[in-house]
Amino acid sequence: MAQASTRPHIDPPTDLAHRFRAARALTESLLAPLSEADVTIQSMDDASPAKWHAAHTTWFWETFLLRDHIPAYRLHDERWPFVFNSYYEAEGERIARGKRGLITRPTLAEVLDWRAHVNAAMEPLLDDPRVADLVALGIAHEEQHIELLLTDIKHGLFQNPLGPAMWEAGNRVAPAQQDGWISHPGGIARVGHQAAGFAFDNEGPVHRVLLEPFALSRRLVTNGEWDQFIAEGGYTDHRLWLSDAWAWVQRRTIAAPLYWRDGEQFTHAGWQQRDPDAPVCHISYYEADAFATWAGARLPGEFEWEAAARGQDMPGFDAEAGNQLDTAAPPLPVGTGELFGDVWQFTRSAYLPYPRFRPVEGAVGEYNGKFMAGQWVLKGASCATVRGHSRPSYRNFFYPQQRWQFTGLRLAKDI
Amino acid sequence: MAQASTRPHIDPPTDLAHRFRAARALTESLLAPLSEADVTIQSMDDASPAKWHAAHTTWFWETFLLRDHIPAYRLHDERWPFVFNSYYEAEGERIARGKRGLITRPTLAEVLDWRAHVNAAMEPLLDDPRVADLVALGIAHEEQHIELLLTDIKHGLFQNPLGPAMWEAGNRVAPAQQDGWISHPGGIARVGHQAAGFAFDNEGPVHRVLLEPFALSRRLVTNGEWDQFIAEGGYTDHRLWLSDAWAWVQRRTIAAPLYWRDGEQFTHAGWQQRDPDAPVCHISYYEADAFATWAGARLPGEFEWEAAARGQDMPGFDAEAGNQLDTAAPPLPVGTGELFGDVWQFTRSAYLPYPRFRPVEGAVGEYNGKFMAGQWVLKGASCATVRGHSRPSYRNFFYPQQRWQFTGLRLAKDI
Amino acid sequence: MAQASTRPHIDPPTDLAHRFRAARALTESLLAPLSEADVTIQSMDDASPAKWHAAHTTWFWETFLLRDHIPAYRLHDERWPFVFNSYYEAEGERIARGKRGLITRPTLAEVLDWRAHVNAAMEPLLDDPRVADLVALGIAHEEQHIELLLTDIKHGLFQNPLGPAMWEAGNRVAPAQQDGWISHPGGIARVGHQAAGFAFDNEGPVHRVLLEPFALSRRLVTNGEWDQFIAEGGYTDHRLWLSDAWAWVQRRTIAAPLYWRDGEQFTHAGWQQRDPDAPVCHISYYEADAFATWAGARLPGEFEWEAAARGQDMPGFDAEAGNQLDTAAPPLPVGTGELFGDVWQFTRSAYLPYPRFRPVEGAVGEYNGKFMAGQWVLKGASCATVRGHSRPSYRNFFYPQQRWQFTGLRLAKDI
Amino acid sequence: MAQASTRPHIDPPTDLAHRFRAARALTESLLAPLSEADVTIQSMDDASPAKWHAAHTTWFWETFLLRDHIPAYRLHDERWPFVFNSYYEAEGERIARGKRGLITRPTLAEVLDWRAHVNAAMEPLLDDPRVADLVALGIAHEEQHIELLLTDIKHGLFQNPLGPAMWEAGNRVAPAQQDGWISHPGGIARVGHQAAGFAFDNEGPVHRVLLEPFALSRRLVTNGEWDQFIAEGGYTDHRLWLSDAWAWVQRRTIAAPLYWRDGEQFTHAGWQQRDPDAPVCHISYYEADAFATWAGARLPGEFEWEAAARGQDMPGFDAEAGNQLDTAAPPLPVGTGELFGDVWQFTRSAYLPYPRFRPVEGAVGEYNGKFMAGQWVLKGASCATVRGHSRPSYRNFFYPQQRWQFTGLRLAKDI
Repeated sequence: MAQASTRPHIDPPTDLAHRFRAARALTESLLAPLSEADVTIQSMDDASPAKWHAAHTTWFWETFLLRDHIPAYRLHDERWPFVFNSYYEAEGERIARGKRGLITRPTLAEVLDWRAHVNAAMEPLLDDPRVADLVALGIAHEEQHIELLLTDIKHGLFQNPLGPAMWEAGNRVAPAQQDGWISHPGGIARVGHQAAGFAFDNEGPVHRVLLEPFALSRRLVTNGEWDQFIAEGGYTDHRLWLSDAWAWVQRRTIAAPLYWRDGEQFTHAGWQQRDPDAPVCHISYYEADAFATWAGARLPGEFEWEAAARGQDMPGFDAEAGNQLDTAAPPLPVGTGELFGDVWQFTRSAYLPYPRFRPVEGAVGEYNGKFMAGQWVLKGASCATVRGHSRPSYRNFFYPQQRWQFTGLRLAKDI
Repeated sequence: MAQASTRPHIDPPTDLAHRFRAARALTESLLAPLSEADVTIQSMDDASPAKWHAAHTTWFWETFLLRDHIPAYRLHDERWPFVFNSYYEAEGERIARGKRGLITRPTLAEVLDWRAHVNAAMEPLLDDPRVADLVALGIAHEEQHIELLLTDIKHGLFQNPLGPAMWEAGNRVAPAQQDGWISHPGGIARVGHQAAGFAFDNEGPVHRVLLEPFALSRRLVTNGEWDQFIAEGGYTDHRLWLSDAWAWVQRRTIAAPLYWRDGEQFTHAGWQQRDPDAPVCHISYYEADAFATWAGARLPGEFEWEAAARGQDMPGFDAEAGNQLDTAAPPLPVGTGELFGDVWQFTRSAYLPYPRFRPVEGAVGEYNGKFMAGQWVLKGASCATVRGHSRPSYRNFFYPQQRWQFTGLRLAKDI
Repeated sequence: MAQASTRPHIDPPTDLAHRFRAARALTESLLAPLSEADVTIQSMDDASPAKWHAAHTTWFWETFLLRDHIPAYRLHDERWPFVFNSYYEAEGERIARGKRGLITRPTLAEVLDWRAHVNAAMEPLLDDPRVADLVALGIAHEEQHIELLLTDIKHGLFQNPLGPAMWEAGNRVAPAQQDGWISHPGGIARVGHQAAGFAFDNEGPVHRVLLEPFALSRRLVTNGEWDQFIAEGGYTDHRLWLSDAWAWVQRRTIAAPLYWRDGEQFTHAGWQQRDPDAPVCHISYYEADAFATWAGARLPGEFEWEAAARGQDMPGFDAEAGNQLDTAAPPLPVGTGELFGDVWQFTRSAYLPYPRFRPVEGAVGEYNGKFMAGQWVLKGASCATVRGHSRPSYRNFFYPQQRWQFTGLRLAKDI
Repeated sequence: MAQASTRPHIDPPTDLAHRFRAARALTESLLAPLSEADVTIQSMDDASPAKWHAAHTTWFWETFLLRDHIPAYRLHDERWPFVFNSYYEAEGERIARGKRGLITRPTLAEVLDWRAHVNAAMEPLLDDPRVADLVALGIAHEEQHIELLLTDIKHGLFQNPLGPAMWEAGNRVAPAQQDGWISHPGGIARVGHQAAGFAFDNEGPVHRVLLEPFALSRRLVTNGEWDQFIAEGGYTDHRLWLSDAWAWVQRRTIAAPLYWRDGEQFTHAGWQQRDPDAPVCHISYYEADAFATWAGARLPGEFEWEAAARGQDMPGFDAEAGNQLDTAAPPLPVGTGELFGDVWQFTRSAYLPYPRFRPVEGAVGEYNGKFMAGQWVLKGASCATVRGHSRPSYRNFFYPQQRWQFTGLRLAKDI
């Protein structure tokens, strides 16, 4: 969520306009290879239909920007907010989460019309400094839903025993990851968002923490290492698992990452061979923790990761590049070795408020704070994250059993 | 399921060919007003997607006729049986029932191609007397799925708070139902399918039963009478309800038929005013039984109904008419007063085998017999039943809490 | 439930007094080998604590006899009806069925005091012809709960991995069952309770049915035959099972009768060797039906069983004998070959009302009629049934997956 | 769990022997007012029967001390470990957690015999320095189960609509709590167990943390304040609640603390008037957090609480006093105003390992570490905590929806 507007960390409006248009266009380009049926299905409560993402992000612009800041604006359709609100209690009732996949009307074409209508209506606001904070938030929100759209449709297609593809299998070059550790001397670190530019409310306030000396692996854990973990009985040795995790493994008969079968993994291009040197992906916190225990290491703390990442921002938004995601091939971690870009990396930190954190008033205040219970912080970014979306202070968060996101791990150790 | 082939009750092959083509065409015409998304969704485990119905019926022809009786026939796609088998254990594994709504590929166009391919391949078999039994069974099977397609898509659209329509609201003339009772003296009756023509295996063997004198209402219970039942506390008086029924009413907070709100009901044409003189519809056995108790009457027994219906067959197949269902307006019971045609009528008979009943060998033997536990017999036919599909000996069956079919009731009493 | 009092089939009052005292004493004698803990536990929703049975039967006498027919009578404790009412909606709220096992107070001693108090208070009513119907009903009710007490405590002790015993293992003589079939020519049979003496409301009205010729096995299916059914893959061949049954077998991984392990079975005397010649016991309707199919036979219809049993009433109440159950050894079917006495025998008849059946008014009318949905009729009596309790017209009933009662099967066939 | 044995922080053996005997005697004295039935029931999965607590603690001594350290020791009964192991996977299989309440044998008397047997066998080990760590752990373990025994039996009796009591209502003096705040300047604090004496493994290693300035309320939130929270709509205003919390409130229709009705609360002495000045009790983390938000304050961090509590240890073990818990009246928070003694106080800290934490090898290593996911830290001690059991570094932990413990809250704020 946007910080209080007195803080001077917002991108120049002109940049906002570019990013707005790029994000909106990216959402739409991802719908292109999908059929009307593909964009409608919902494979589980955690996931949403692609059409819903396209509509919900539009609802956000309409509700928090157009409705409140353009007096003459009339809602495109007064009955749609009920259908496309996600979790904003303050914005009224909404359909049960698990029923989103039954909304065949409005059609995708109607939703695309809505998008075009809202895109046009937003233009006057894009360089209005009075709403720059909200516009920046809306862009970040749309970018988040772009990643969710990608992970949700992947999960939906995976349910089909025919293993359909929405993408051609690409030929991504898998650079060799670099071995070794990045050491950090510990001490007092200033953490939280402190540069210019947009950040969510959960990244602040800036504060100091005391770190012990530690080291972070230069590389991500790979599919090959995970194969070894399995081969050596990782999923059957209760000593490696947290109590809740062990119950989950047994109840759900978990024995491999999500999307694995034999030597293959399911991707947006259907079933593909698994590259043993590529980073492992689609694991839960429970699995990441068990693996780290098995490896004689541990997961990094969120502030350790942030401290190690200082000065290594993610490749940023590029107005020239147009498409803010490499769509030449399906999103797949290849092993860049970089902190940002392959997989979100589990930390051992529970997702909790920073000292003196206080949500903003009103519906947008529901953005992050109310989820601060039972979830875990992930750092970095994934192959499905919009370029420039993340940063060292960025806090992604999920429940410990969830694994349909592009989630992996980077080991840490005490030194 | 077809009777043993020695019994000479099969329609002349030439008639079979007409009925085959009519049923296939009818399935396809019902898909016309639906989008790719509409045909894909599944609103509950009991329902199936429209596309699935279109594909599953085709799988039936391919599996039981073409594969077994045309030596050179090759499956249209070898991976599709797994996806479109319904419950035939003998035909191998199949996807979990609740996941049918996640199959976005093959597309509707691909399924329609398959249908065309199978329709053409079937032609040589349509007048082959050696498979006439199986062809008749396949037609009856397709006709059943036509009704299910209609009830399932209605349930799917109902989930959408926007109340979408797939049909124009029609202007059906509602004839006044005739009051009074049809008396029957009781005695020994011969029941079960005994005329020429196809019948399912569950309609035989023909046998004798002893009936007490009884009377059957000339008309169906109406929406207006149901309004009165509600107004007088029908849903809140435990004395009217069976024990399982009362638990269901309370757990699910049932207070009206399915698809009711205020003075309206949901139809294939969206929300429409309710006609108080039209037959009540979309009720469960539990509700039918409670209403009958409240009314001081009872439900008919299945053999009472059959005995009363002797000689009153449903309007039959009409090769001239083409479309075997009135599609000028959405299916809706209007109150013809006839035994066949408005709503399926609950009996108080459990769905059980007749004396000396024995399922046929092989996969087609799974058609009816294995469902003979926990369900109730319904007689008649509904506004969504293909013309000529039903007959006096016809036994429809559902679980006592199900109510998404066109189900209603006709009262009976002892005399 | 008692028939209307104009029907002259009630035992002479003097007999009622004897039976009342015998039943009350029998309940109490069965509590003797049980600890305060034993009588308190509830192992599943279907079962009730032994103390609850002792109290509930007492509540019945207090509620329907003493409260209504002895003006000066004051409830022993006004708060106890809430705790010990079972399912009589008309008698007000009651604790959730699954919470009966948490009622540690009143203690067993207090409940026994209550029993003594009620026993004494009942004396003046025992030979009062105006309440003879209700007294007969109360005795039948107490006798039913005696059997339930026995099956419920068995299920409770079975949960304990230490396999505790409440009884010494006896040395019951297992007479060889007689092979062969009892043939019946069919025809019109008069069924329902038609002799003198008490009967439940669900055994009437007397009416005629038409039977086809059939034969009933002289003996019950044995443990040894069931071993063979298992050995030949009975639990893994879907073709033998009803659809609901097969889902149950797979979901619950059913592979043997309840209480079986290796060559043993759990009894009130703990784990004991299984006698291959003794009747199989603790099976569900689903299993009985699958076995009959496997054996090339079928289950009897309830009226076939009744017709075959005409004139073979159960050994009756014996005022001299005192204890109305053989308590020299734990209840266990040994194979008397008789229709009454080893195990309740599943029929293929759904539990439904007879023609012109109508429950009596008021709370006692809830006794039987409201359970007429989804259950199956069992005939005969078991080793745990009070002597004289059953008769040819008796209808026991349970859900098709239930098997903690002494349930077995006797095959039938068409002739 | 015990620290590595090289650390010299264990109480002198002589003290251990006293504490062992006191704890064992206290467990037994709490069983005295309970019937055989009372000690057997289990009211929910989270709770265990009193008899189980008495047996499980004995199993612990037998398994980790006697079996491993007294060569000639033979298990009292070889079949009991299966029944009384709790969650130690390394110690083999055990009965399903929810079935503990069905174990009526062994009887309480048999368990007490076992206790006496083990107590005697333990004597030689009580002053053996080689096992002092393990003995200290066993005592702490027994003390924890004493508190659980008290909370579990309370929950069990509460299920009974008759509201039974196991204790006389006492006349506890409720001292007026002192208003105001304890300020702390923040800065670097050393946290974790650092004094002599036993501590669990989760209280270490000692490490430094950086604290912001804060203040802690001198008093606990009271029943009266909670009444006001309710009156002002606390349970119906979604803005006060975390997302998971709000789902919990709605699904379970939570509208007050556990054990509340009208002006009363359920206690070990049955239903009693609620003292508005006494600390509120039996609330969940979700409720504590919502209240703090409503009050414009927040929950303390676990290290803030620990820093504020430095030098204020709980009243210690008193060898003279004998009984290590005030059993003159039922445990009930009265408002001493002290950090230890009324209720466990929720912090906003997730229960996670301290830096460089590593569980010890073997089964005792399962004590604490494997629960470090999804739970929250509570500090202090309650009216049901054994004297001397807690300390500033003590970390109690529960899931955010649990509330059958003596849990309350003390507000904190930033300064």
